[in-house]
Amino acid sequence: MTNFPKGFALHVGNVGIKDNTNDLMVLTADSNSAVAGVFTQSRFAGPNIEISKQNIATGSAKAVAIISKNANVATGETGRSNAEEITELVAATVNAEPSEIILGSTGVIGVQYPMDRIRDYLSQLKSPFSGREAEAAAAAIMTTDTHPKVASASVGPATIVGVAKGVGMIEPNMATMIAVITTDAEINSDRLDEIFRRIVDKTFNALSVDTDTSTSDMAIVLASGQAGVVAEDQFESALAAVCLSLTRQLAADGEGAETLIVVDVTSARDEEQARRVAKAIVNSPLVKTAIHGRDPNWGRVAMAIGKCGDADINQQDVAIYFGDHEVYPTPVSPQKLTELETYLGSDEVRITADLGVGNGTFTAYGCDLTDGYVRINADYTT
Amino acid sequence: MTNFPKGFALHVGNVGIKDNTNDLMVLTADSNSAVAGVFTQSRFAGPNIEISKQNIATGSAKAVAIISKNANVATGETGRSNAEEITELVAATVNAEPSEIILGSTGVIGVQYPMDRIRDYLSQLKSPFSGREAEAAAAAIMTTDTHPKVASASVGPATIVGVAKGVGMIEPNMATMIAVITTDAEINSDRLDEIFRRIVDKTFNALSVDTDTSTSDMAIVLASGQAGVVAEDQFESALAAVCLSLTRQLAADGEGAETLIVVDVTSARDEEQARRVAKAIVNSPLVKTAIHGRDPNWGRVAMAIGKCGDADINQQDVAIYFGDHEVYPTPVSPQKLTELETYLGSDEVRITADLGVGNGTFTAYGCDLTDGYVRINADYTT
Repeated sequence: MTNFPKGFALHVGNVGIKDNTNDLMVLTADSNSAVAGVFTQSRFAGPNIEISKQNIATGSAKAVAIISKNANVATGETGRSNAEEITELVAATVNAEPSEIILGSTGVIGVQYPMDRIRDYLSQLKSPFSGREAEAAAAAIMTTDTHPKVASASVGPATIVGVAKGVGMIEPNMATMIAVITTDAEINSDRLDEIFRRIVDKTFNALSVDTDTSTSDMAIVLASGQAGVVAEDQFESALAAVCLSLTRQLAADGEGAETLIVVDVTSARDEEQARRVAKAIVNSPLVKTAIHGRDPNWGRVAMAIGKCGDADINQQDVAIYFGDHEVYPTPVSPQKLTELETYLGSDEVRITADLGVGNGTFTAYGCDLTDGYVRINADYTT
Repeated sequence: MTNFPKGFALHVGNVGIKDNTNDLMVLTADSNSAVAGVFTQSRFAGPNIEISKQNIATGSAKAVAIISKNANVATGETGRSNAEEITELVAATVNAEPSEIILGSTGVIGVQYPMDRIRDYLSQLKSPFSGREAEAAAAAIMTTDTHPKVASASVGPATIVGVAKGVGMIEPNMATMIAVITTDAEINSDRLDEIFRRIVDKTFNALSVDTDTSTSDMAIVLASGQAGVVAEDQFESALAAVCLSLTRQLAADGEGAETLIVVDVTSARDEEQARRVAKAIVNSPLVKTAIHGRDPNWGRVAMAIGKCGDADINQQDVAIYFGDHEVYPTPVSPQKLTELETYLGSDEVRITADLGVGNGTFTAYGCDLTDGYVRINADYTT
């Protein structure tokens, strides 16, 4: 069990949004926390995204409330006023202003909240809360995740604890799936924001399960300050480790996934090219199905590199590896083929594409494409 | 059975590239034909693409040779010299210069051609050929297609006959899968090129089975001139109809596909925005699996529109339809839901997204995502 750092308190419960599993998480800070966050850029973002962006702009927050099983997306004016009302109800519960609340929502699109149930529940909810368990928070925000995701790290006297969800409809872009990171380190919101965005760029924004960037992604980090100031570079390393762990956990739990795929692109023109190529490989249905079939089909990796189209990528300068095994241009011997098939049966497979252009690198995270993904998403009923 | 137009003659046969199905197609023009073509922009294009681009630049060709079951991609210097040698052998067989030959190749990546077999076969092959059947040509170029694709149209005294293949590793970009269109209409290569590119833009380049743009795509059109001059606008209409038919046939035969999906985007800022949004919808794994599951999940269509990120797309101005049924913003009644599920069980489903911005439109073609696609591509062994 992982407890949240000093200064945070948790409530989880079942409102009855859709079923009888926990569907509400409210995390409070004893006193206002420095806060930073990134959000989906989807043009179909839910109203909670707008509300949260406005509220986060102050750099300070008192509570994060997340509803699961309903994203409150494409719900028009009614959805908008419902989101505002929930923000006010949560604020009243935790003795804060509405502008000090961050609101997350994930689940079905196009369905109104069951407001009667939500009003009843929140009007009876009392603070302060006494919950401390991150696993309970992570479980309350899940939709199709098969298990809760938690990660933690220490930095001097401070700890960082994060929870995340999101394994389908996932390719965050300048935003993330829902991740809430907490720390009792003391750091002002501007520094927190700069550090967090840098980390998000290499973790949550490097993740793709199915290219379908969600309407509801958000990642936020709150710092209560109760453990005092810590060395900033050490803080950044620890926060990066927590975010990377959550990213890898999300990729590995991709809907229907059996294999975590890590794609390293090296010797690119620059990081931007490396990122595009890494995403092209990790997003390719043909690469993903090959990994599922334990097929060392490097030709599909070559195809994925090739479709990026950049004129400075030359076939003769490219090298491709599965794990430590080079598969192109050196031909694969029959003996090596057997080793490769064994390697591809692992829970984690690393594909490296060296472009032979410059010094740019990037790592992307994803998963194989299986019948499971198709069944989960074809059998889901609106 | 569909015969090629006047001025074209066909040979098909089995060289033994991989198995005993036909794997060679050679189509000759009695005298040089005007020719135009588009090719993959993949950075991992096979050497035949470079050779064909150079040869097509003259605007005139004598024969098209296509090898199936081996793409000759990522085969290095050996692959390059093999492609040149095959071009010379075909030229000798049909009494032409190597520069008058267009060479296509499709199939496995990273394996050298069995040159002994190819040399033996071509050295014994004699022209002129006597074949006329387009279906035989279409069958000889297939890899994972389940059936040959042929389309034809008349224009005055002339006919247009096209064959195509390509149902996996398909999202042509400024190029196409392998399509060979022939006509006995008389038209010079510059006019042919301009018309063909305009048509390709709305047909083959509007097709996506799985976003994995191939290393080997090409579409070419040859005009023997033997039927004389025809009205150019009528010629363009007829050629467009042939290419559209082939595009729809390819989409419907997508690996594992059970449903052809047609996505119409209307009222976009311009055609470019309409194209991006149409592709985002037709490429979304979540939209594709929903169609497979007959689930009128318009929320996923909204998500796909949303991920395009353009600031001028506003949720409240968007409308979404499945067939003629509006599903957003007007809520779907229970009765309508039943009608929708029936509609989604058809062989062809049309999704319309009206963006409410301007006058731009675009139509994209694709297919559902099924367990069949996963099995075909996970069970394929290198």
